Amino acid sequence: MTMRLAKRMQQVEDSAFLTALDKAETVEGMISFAAGMPAPELFPVEAIIRSNTKTLEDEARYALQYGPVEGHPLLNTILTKRMADKNVAGTEENILVTSGSQQALDFVGKVFIDEGDAVIVENPTYLGALSAFNPYMPRYVAVEMDEEGMIIEELERALRENPNAKFIYTIPDFQNPTGRQLSLERRKKMLELSNKYNVPIVEDAPYTDLCFEGEQLPPLKALDDKGLVIYLGTLSKIFCPAFRIGWIFAEKELISRFVAIKVGADLQTSLLLQRQSANFLKGFDMASHIQKIRDLYRSRRDVMLRAIEAYMPEDVTYTRPKGGLFIWVGFPPDITGEGLVETFIEEKVLAIPGETFFTSPPGRCYFRLNYSFMPEKEIDEGIRRLANVIKAMR
Amino acid sequence: MTMRLAKRMQQVEDSAFLTALDKAETVEGMISFAAGMPAPELFPVEAIIRSNTKTLEDEARYALQYGPVEGHPLLNTILTKRMADKNVAGTEENILVTSGSQQALDFVGKVFIDEGDAVIVENPTYLGALSAFNPYMPRYVAVEMDEEGMIIEELERALRENPNAKFIYTIPDFQNPTGRQLSLERRKKMLELSNKYNVPIVEDAPYTDLCFEGEQLPPLKALDDKGLVIYLGTLSKIFCPAFRIGWIFAEKELISRFVAIKVGADLQTSLLLQRQSANFLKGFDMASHIQKIRDLYRSRRDVMLRAIEAYMPEDVTYTRPKGGLFIWVGFPPDITGEGLVETFIEEKVLAIPGETFFTSPPGRCYFRLNYSFMPEKEIDEGIRRLANVIKAMR
Repeated sequence: MTMRLAKRMQQVEDSAFLTALDKAETVEGMISFAAGMPAPELFPVEAIIRSNTKTLEDEARYALQYGPVEGHPLLNTILTKRMADKNVAGTEENILVTSGSQQALDFVGKVFIDEGDAVIVENPTYLGALSAFNPYMPRYVAVEMDEEGMIIEELERALRENPNAKFIYTIPDFQNPTGRQLSLERRKKMLELSNKYNVPIVEDAPYTDLCFEGEQLPPLKALDDKGLVIYLGTLSKIFCPAFRIGWIFAEKELISRFVAIKVGADLQTSLLLQRQSANFLKGFDMASHIQKIRDLYRSRRDVMLRAIEAYMPEDVTYTRPKGGLFIWVGFPPDITGEGLVETFIEEKVLAIPGETFFTSPPGRCYFRLNYSFMPEKEIDEGIRRLANVIKAMR
Repeated sequence: MTMRLAKRMQQVEDSAFLTALDKAETVEGMISFAAGMPAPELFPVEAIIRSNTKTLEDEARYALQYGPVEGHPLLNTILTKRMADKNVAGTEENILVTSGSQQALDFVGKVFIDEGDAVIVENPTYLGALSAFNPYMPRYVAVEMDEEGMIIEELERALRENPNAKFIYTIPDFQNPTGRQLSLERRKKMLELSNKYNVPIVEDAPYTDLCFEGEQLPPLKALDDKGLVIYLGTLSKIFCPAFRIGWIFAEKELISRFVAIKVGADLQTSLLLQRQSANFLKGFDMASHIQKIRDLYRSRRDVMLRAIEAYMPEDVTYTRPKGGLFIWVGFPPDITGEGLVETFIEEKVLAIPGETFFTSPPGRCYFRLNYSFMPEKEIDEGIRRLANVIKAMR
């Protein structure tokens, strides 16, 4: 039978490309700069085993059951404390625990976007945010960036031309895919514009703690005294992805709407994982752990930057991130990108083609390179392979 | 600031009532027939601790990482085998693992429903399905039931009057909230109608294995040779809810569309929980475990039925489920239901008011009573309390 699907499914890209990339990850000898995976050698395995086992030994009948929609109370308290440490004031009622921050992005789409609504995004922006928003059929308004993040004059123009925009979506720290950090001055100006045009800001902050050079800047939410900012947090990059613990921090009234959406979407995030995360975080020195992650990622970034300098043609451009997981590489105009990812895969190196991060074709060939996942030797070798492919095309 | 939300949020009920019920659950001395919670004393805790620990000891770096969208390969294989045991043929490509079957319901809404589309449901139907579908703004066509499930003539009328209906949503086994089972003859007729009108069936099957009296009937999917049925399964009721393992079993092409939705919705279900579930299921005698659950729930149902007979006024109606978790009680017309749930809570007994399961006011006061969660003594006492409230109203 041919089933009649919802109109929104025309906006939802086929999963074939993604599945192909997933499959390629597991090919023997593949060097992957594709996914944004944290370094698995830093997962605090012993501490996780201890807290997981203790949770089940102490309170299995509770922890294996259904739980409250808004999140496990102890976890909500710990997350509220984490927000307070970033100078974001609030209570447990300002938080909804989500299944990773990807789910928070889906909820943002669901709560805000009607078909045709303008949504302001960075150009380029996180492809997962586009996947989350696309089913709600927004009209994207993409704002140009430079090394300091969104260009404020461009943002103001976008707001002036789209005064009914539903929100501004930004990753202020070490943006995905570019690795750029929004400057403090621009954070303040973005908030002023948000207030002036009455358009909320969705602040996606997965990499904020992974600042390994320069100053860690305050989240937009810490500068927000009008309740304009919807902050999305996650433990995936500082603890581990498989616990799927994310959260939305926002005004109480708005959180209650997100809670209503959470019920229909998946009832609740696993109480077991929430309880285990809470037990883990209670006894773990997260600050030292984050420092270890920063040190490792700084080294890996350095190796990747040096390899790019050493092997890539001079007219290749690239960002120099001060944190996070990604370097954004732009190839010269004579490299069209046609079939490039397939050639890379033949050479056993994987990276995400830039066009997936744009809301309209960028007119230039970019790639996003992840440096957090691979050991240094593979980073060097992988960049050499990428460079060889590019050189062979000239 | 006042934020402008999407139009769909007008269809999403406030979470306050639910949160209040959640809170009431934890009041000291409360007897709860409200949630559909499995008996926690049957959770296979020792085996879970063993398989969870083993997973982390053997392969933490893999299991704590991001994983494939469609599900962990070993878990998909085990679930495919479970489907084969129910005479449902297919391969791993027919399955998408979801975060509980609640997420599958949300995905069904997202993939199929455009605003105003007719969706055919049982009258009454699972409130969680309504929560999942509501944000996509369908128009519900509710089909009357009797003791054998949806009345087929009524279903045909609904299809004739709504030939563009997107799907028929049914819980054929021990329906939530009524506990009714769709008869074999009606299963066949429902499939014929689905085929005749080219309207797929969404078969929600959380309670299928919990058949403790009479014959376990084949799933609609086992009788479906045209790819008309989208089967939703879950481990929540036979293993435990906190692992949040559900799945969609359907035609390969349709699964690939669901996979595309899963990426945007939450990337993937926790790889850790998937890996641990797979390891658990590999070594566990699920058949004996299910038999234990059946025996316990049969006893608890018997206690609840006997208590209803003993304490309730004669003109109270109720179903006699042969499986599952719920009895559906109807109060006589002089009991309006106004303020009744609050009075029950004062008497320290909790049940879900019937109107939440209807798409339009039922014109009679019903309650859904769960018997799986409470020990026998509390079941007896709780029904006595409910009955005393009703008697005091006359």
